[in-house]
Amino acid sequence: MSSKPLHIAVVGATGAVGQQMLNTLEQKKFPFEKLTLLASRRSAGQVIEFKGKSYTVEEATPAAFEGVHLALFSAGGSVSKALAHEAVKRGAIVVDNTSAFRMDPEVPLVVPEVNENDLLNHKGIIANPNCSTIQMVAALKPLHEKLGLKKVVVSTYQAVSGAGAKAIEELKSQAKAILEDKDFTPEILPCGSDKKHYQIAFNAIPQIDLFQENGFTYEEMKMMNETKKIMHLEDLHISATCVRLPVVTGHSESLYAEFEKAGASVQEIRDILSAAEGITLQDSPEEQIYPMPAASVGLPDVFVGRIRKDPDSDKAFHMWIVSDNLLKGAAWNSVQIAESLLKLGLL
Amino acid sequence: MSSKPLHIAVVGATGAVGQQMLNTLEQKKFPFEKLTLLASRRSAGQVIEFKGKSYTVEEATPAAFEGVHLALFSAGGSVSKALAHEAVKRGAIVVDNTSAFRMDPEVPLVVPEVNENDLLNHKGIIANPNCSTIQMVAALKPLHEKLGLKKVVVSTYQAVSGAGAKAIEELKSQAKAILEDKDFTPEILPCGSDKKHYQIAFNAIPQIDLFQENGFTYEEMKMMNETKKIMHLEDLHISATCVRLPVVTGHSESLYAEFEKAGASVQEIRDILSAAEGITLQDSPEEQIYPMPAASVGLPDVFVGRIRKDPDSDKAFHMWIVSDNLLKGAAWNSVQIAESLLKLGLL
Repeated sequence: MSSKPLHIAVVGATGAVGQQMLNTLEQKKFPFEKLTLLASRRSAGQVIEFKGKSYTVEEATPAAFEGVHLALFSAGGSVSKALAHEAVKRGAIVVDNTSAFRMDPEVPLVVPEVNENDLLNHKGIIANPNCSTIQMVAALKPLHEKLGLKKVVVSTYQAVSGAGAKAIEELKSQAKAILEDKDFTPEILPCGSDKKHYQIAFNAIPQIDLFQENGFTYEEMKMMNETKKIMHLEDLHISATCVRLPVVTGHSESLYAEFEKAGASVQEIRDILSAAEGITLQDSPEEQIYPMPAASVGLPDVFVGRIRKDPDSDKAFHMWIVSDNLLKGAAWNSVQIAESLLKLGLL
Repeated sequence: MSSKPLHIAVVGATGAVGQQMLNTLEQKKFPFEKLTLLASRRSAGQVIEFKGKSYTVEEATPAAFEGVHLALFSAGGSVSKALAHEAVKRGAIVVDNTSAFRMDPEVPLVVPEVNENDLLNHKGIIANPNCSTIQMVAALKPLHEKLGLKKVVVSTYQAVSGAGAKAIEELKSQAKAILEDKDFTPEILPCGSDKKHYQIAFNAIPQIDLFQENGFTYEEMKMMNETKKIMHLEDLHISATCVRLPVVTGHSESLYAEFEKAGASVQEIRDILSAAEGITLQDSPEEQIYPMPAASVGLPDVFVGRIRKDPDSDKAFHMWIVSDNLLKGAAWNSVQIAESLLKLGLL
């Protein structure tokens, strides 16, 4: 552990993930001496209470990073692109929660339980993976170590909070309008920056983020590319279908995994996952115990259940993976990266 | 076409699917002379308007089937088990919408676009497949004919109306309670006959029907076994994960399919599906056009979109299949079977 008095900056402190970042720093008792809260000019001047002290949010400018050792960014990709290198230039290590640098070969993309040692090669910026990727690789890594991962087919059931506070508001106001038989106009989902918007309440939208030329969405490509990078499996067969649901918080994933090694039993899969860091097994069909998004809210764990052996293969399994997309999927993993940096003597 | 004056009975006429059965008979202008509406003793005596005439619902007893040529059953498995053979004994052909006889080798399990000729071997009872199976095989059959189906991995996104009128009421009242920050007690979902009940509003429940010994639910086993039977593909590799969503009507499916034949393009898959009976292609990512459950309500089609080639295989594709579970998934398919019986001279 470092003994220098740490100066931390949280960039995007007024947003949903920024708030969770502060909660997580407090919950995990992350050690620091000085805290600077940064946000856009629009949000500057707001006062945020943290551990009994009042902090005035400052505008995020290059100069604001003077003296900062660790900057936790979650203010959108354009802010990260504009300011992360400025922060690094001034001596900070950046943990970035946007997609801006994730596929940059110079930037480690880290889930501490999976590839903590990639931090040793950092050049100032470290990327936090996409929420739906994090919970999946957390479950796949321990299985890969024992059985050798070969192929993944994943379908997601994602919550609207992954699309921000306005998307949560849209889901709630739409649900209310439908229940009261009133009119409404979709304005945010599936994707604020795309042309058309669709009803999310009492519906399912098979689009998260923008479409790419190959017909996959950017969210799907993130899951596929980030998983290969984090797990150091460039040749992994992996494909994703990402779907937005009328759920406020908690992403779920129906996952099919094929392994190199044949003959594992459901009980062996359960034992491997039970012993894994950060994973909580919830898998007792006879007692109707399985993970559900509404039950995952506020908890940092990745929950795994519904583990079944494929009826037609001795090498394949199905499972259901759930986690709070704002915690392990975002803030919790970012603070875990900061803890790993301390542990490895990098901070 | 038969020219005899047909006498039809609808068993379960007061239920959600029974009502859709009557609507569908009317919409499709199905020819008949006499209509008898049957239900449990509790519902007997109710008066139902149909094509401008009033019908008094009678109690479903063996004697009620005297003189009936065609009986459409959708009053639950126990009613079918008790009365279907009684109806057949009295000369009726039964189209049964429950799971009671689906896997009986003596009973054809029919989706007319897929295996209409199986009707030729009927022995009185014909089974209507499970809702989530019907829409899947309707999309898979034309692809199988051209490319040879080898393997399917499917994850479902199912509406609560599949669990009956009380489940719809539970979703709506729970959503209202949550929006108003009031307490509620789950009583129906995931499965009225199971021990524990969970929140469905703003949640996703990975259980539909009861768990089997192998860890799959009965709904999942239905999709797997019925697909093999309907498509006459005993060796098909198929596995399903079935999930209940806070959606009123419209089942969605994220499907991964591997074929024998290599090298098909996305455009070829689209062309095959466009030409297929009962399928409507909704697949223009550049215009954000894809199927969604809320947009499928009240329509008899099976909608397919999000067609993507698997990035790691020249033989595999992903797609998203949506249909109104009360129409093509139930009533519409039952009446289609009746039309096929007429066309084949069996009625």
